[in-house]
Amino acid sequence: MALDAVLTAIDRDIDKSLERLFALLRIPSVSTDPAFAGECQKAADWLARELSSLGFNAGVRPTKGRPMVVAHSHGPTGANGPRVLFYGHYDVQPPDPLEKWQTPPFEPRIADMNGRRQIVARGSADDKGQLMTFVEACRAFIATDGKLPLPVTILFEGEEETGSPSLKPFLDANKNELKADVALVCDTDMWDTDTPAVTTMLRGLVLEEVIVQGASHDLHSGLFGGPAINPIRVLARVLADIHDKDNRIAIPGFYDGAGDLDPEIRAQWMGLKFDEKRFLGDLGLSVPAGEEGRHILEQLWSRPTCDMNGIVGGYTGEGSKTVIPARASAKVSFRLVGDQDPLIIRDAFRAFARARLPADCDAEFISHGASPALRLPLNSPYLAKTREALAAEWGRPAVLKGSGGSIPIVGAFKHDLGMDSLLVGFGLDDDRIHSPNEKYDLKSFQKGARSWARILAALAT
Amino acid sequence: MALDAVLTAIDRDIDKSLERLFALLRIPSVSTDPAFAGECQKAADWLARELSSLGFNAGVRPTKGRPMVVAHSHGPTGANGPRVLFYGHYDVQPPDPLEKWQTPPFEPRIADMNGRRQIVARGSADDKGQLMTFVEACRAFIATDGKLPLPVTILFEGEEETGSPSLKPFLDANKNELKADVALVCDTDMWDTDTPAVTTMLRGLVLEEVIVQGASHDLHSGLFGGPAINPIRVLARVLADIHDKDNRIAIPGFYDGAGDLDPEIRAQWMGLKFDEKRFLGDLGLSVPAGEEGRHILEQLWSRPTCDMNGIVGGYTGEGSKTVIPARASAKVSFRLVGDQDPLIIRDAFRAFARARLPADCDAEFISHGASPALRLPLNSPYLAKTREALAAEWGRPAVLKGSGGSIPIVGAFKHDLGMDSLLVGFGLDDDRIHSPNEKYDLKSFQKGARSWARILAALAT
Repeated sequence: MALDAVLTAIDRDIDKSLERLFALLRIPSVSTDPAFAGECQKAADWLARELSSLGFNAGVRPTKGRPMVVAHSHGPTGANGPRVLFYGHYDVQPPDPLEKWQTPPFEPRIADMNGRRQIVARGSADDKGQLMTFVEACRAFIATDGKLPLPVTILFEGEEETGSPSLKPFLDANKNELKADVALVCDTDMWDTDTPAVTTMLRGLVLEEVIVQGASHDLHSGLFGGPAINPIRVLARVLADIHDKDNRIAIPGFYDGAGDLDPEIRAQWMGLKFDEKRFLGDLGLSVPAGEEGRHILEQLWSRPTCDMNGIVGGYTGEGSKTVIPARASAKVSFRLVGDQDPLIIRDAFRAFARARLPADCDAEFISHGASPALRLPLNSPYLAKTREALAAEWGRPAVLKGSGGSIPIVGAFKHDLGMDSLLVGFGLDDDRIHSPNEKYDLKSFQKGARSWARILAALAT
Repeated sequence: MALDAVLTAIDRDIDKSLERLFALLRIPSVSTDPAFAGECQKAADWLARELSSLGFNAGVRPTKGRPMVVAHSHGPTGANGPRVLFYGHYDVQPPDPLEKWQTPPFEPRIADMNGRRQIVARGSADDKGQLMTFVEACRAFIATDGKLPLPVTILFEGEEETGSPSLKPFLDANKNELKADVALVCDTDMWDTDTPAVTTMLRGLVLEEVIVQGASHDLHSGLFGGPAINPIRVLARVLADIHDKDNRIAIPGFYDGAGDLDPEIRAQWMGLKFDEKRFLGDLGLSVPAGEEGRHILEQLWSRPTCDMNGIVGGYTGEGSKTVIPARASAKVSFRLVGDQDPLIIRDAFRAFARARLPADCDAEFISHGASPALRLPLNSPYLAKTREALAAEWGRPAVLKGSGGSIPIVGAFKHDLGMDSLLVGFGLDDDRIHSPNEKYDLKSFQKGARSWARILAALAT
């Protein structure tokens, strides 16, 4: 069978694969510092050359910021299987603080830690090591079989660590070229060193700022305290009322569309033996603060939440000042799940806040964003095939994870290109991404490449 | 009768009195700017010379900041009437913004406004014009009678506009010299242009800062929102719970000792035809925010209150940041009345806040001050005589006012020297103190001096 030969090729060539990854890791493609723009260009050129050498029609495409790499492979003649778009990013976080690295961040090495062989370098896990798992899988297929089993487009960007400012314009300008049946994104984690994972649920996000205005100007709290309304007090009332005593959101209609967790996924999560004590202990906490009666993984992945991200009003310097401020403001964010409508949530929050304003207060609202939750449908045939492929490689079922945070690229693919994303990655909790001594397990790299080979083969069937 | 001659002398010499006041107003004794330290010294020297010329044993006394002026007059031989300490301050606020003055701030002039003759200059009302009402009363007494009717000590300070840093050390170091039976303080307002007032109630002040700590470090609100406690939310709950729906303070025991308003004072206040609409309208407000069922003057003068003077936590810059801050803090102040104990209130607030902390939150408290309310006893014989004197001068009873703010000198006299203060002043709402075009009504100046002459005569009986 062709796949077996591909997997064998991956294992046989692992040292050469590592050499290639090391070459990429040696390029300090830090995107946030303009001084490294030339290094980003180098990384993009290197990737385009590698992909061209595999037979991809590959090019480096300029943007207002760091360039994109786009590469196409037509796959087998007459193939009518799905076309996939693979996404990764070649830019890395700055290596600071340099003095905390045991060896220089852009001189990759193999280290043994706790019996695990690890690739240590900036970008090893985020995201060069991960994206190269896919490139090496493609290489093995082409080397073994002369072609990929299905049409593949690859998109590498160089601005992920700086908020991807050029990505949406680029997608909009190249819709037809980039549109595929499904996206493959390799920038997420496994459940643990032995258990693969597919991230199928991403919470949505509504970002609101509320500014409560009281008197027309700041007042002396002695001369006016009592008769004059205090906007900090009004704002505190609005914020305090958002959660009820069971830590549920009390905004009317808030849970509309939140839906219920699929029983299969719930059963899987409950079987995960998640170490709640350690998870909270690492934060200096001990008690889950989310909805009463919900498991901590539900609180994190499948339940909507509200957080106050910032608040300010009045005098905030040293000592005291007897002032009644004219205004006070807070930044409030909502994480959404299921089919919660971000615009309805936004309006509901605004109405909820306005209902708590006394006659003499006004509120102004500023929207800093509103995006819905994203879910890969559980009945997606691509997901089913991916789960089979991962189970075959790892010998156990893949965990279907959620993520409390957002992954903007997934929203962009969904809303601009109309396609779902399969989020499969081989990072681990202890990879220290964005920190000194970032690493990527050699096992993640090798079995990651094997996993992609299996996934490509499965998707082609 | 001697008093009539004194009053006649005041009226007859009003032009010369004004000349003297103008001489003092021409000295730009701004205390906050070190460049004007020499001018403060000049003002102190000028006052000491004036008082010496009247027969006072007067001197300028250095401090670490601006000097004090202390002057003694023994009064009639063998007098065993009360000894009084008169307090005023010769320093003034900076005149900025200069361009808003119709004429230069230190070139005093008489202007007609709305049919009232007014002295326009920085310091005319706050406090040079006011303190000179007392000096001119003393002058007329001495010119007419050869002596004052009772022993008088005068204390003028030059740091009132900068928080009086030298005052307490000076009082402590000169207790025996300055201790009197009652203090006379001339730095407050009349009720209106025709109605004198004595300020007999000053609210106390407890200044607290509360810092709520959640996780050990800032967290990503997507990756941890739900399970991780948010200290802004906890702080909002504490602050929101302080007031109940009737705008009363819900802290247990808070009202202990607040007492009831004396029926005579209440009756007087209710008769004042206070223009609530205009008072609030000037602030951009329309509805009294104090305790339900209390008149706005009660809310302001005789009822305790709580205000949040500042709050800060998390991200407060432009846009948004998905952070759960590790801490959030607020500055909270309480205005006290009657016999409320500031230390008990402080502890009650802290217990109230702690009772609202979830298991994973700690709170730290910082005290920025705790001082009780001050009241001049209604049965004080000094007050009775002062009311008689004021009624005789103005042809109507003096209003017994409260003040929502604190006047630190009064607390210092009470606590350091053990004496009550009679707060009698002739300022008006529209004096624009601290603002451009500050003025003092000529009527306030002339009838103010006459009032002090009457008060001195009355206290001597």
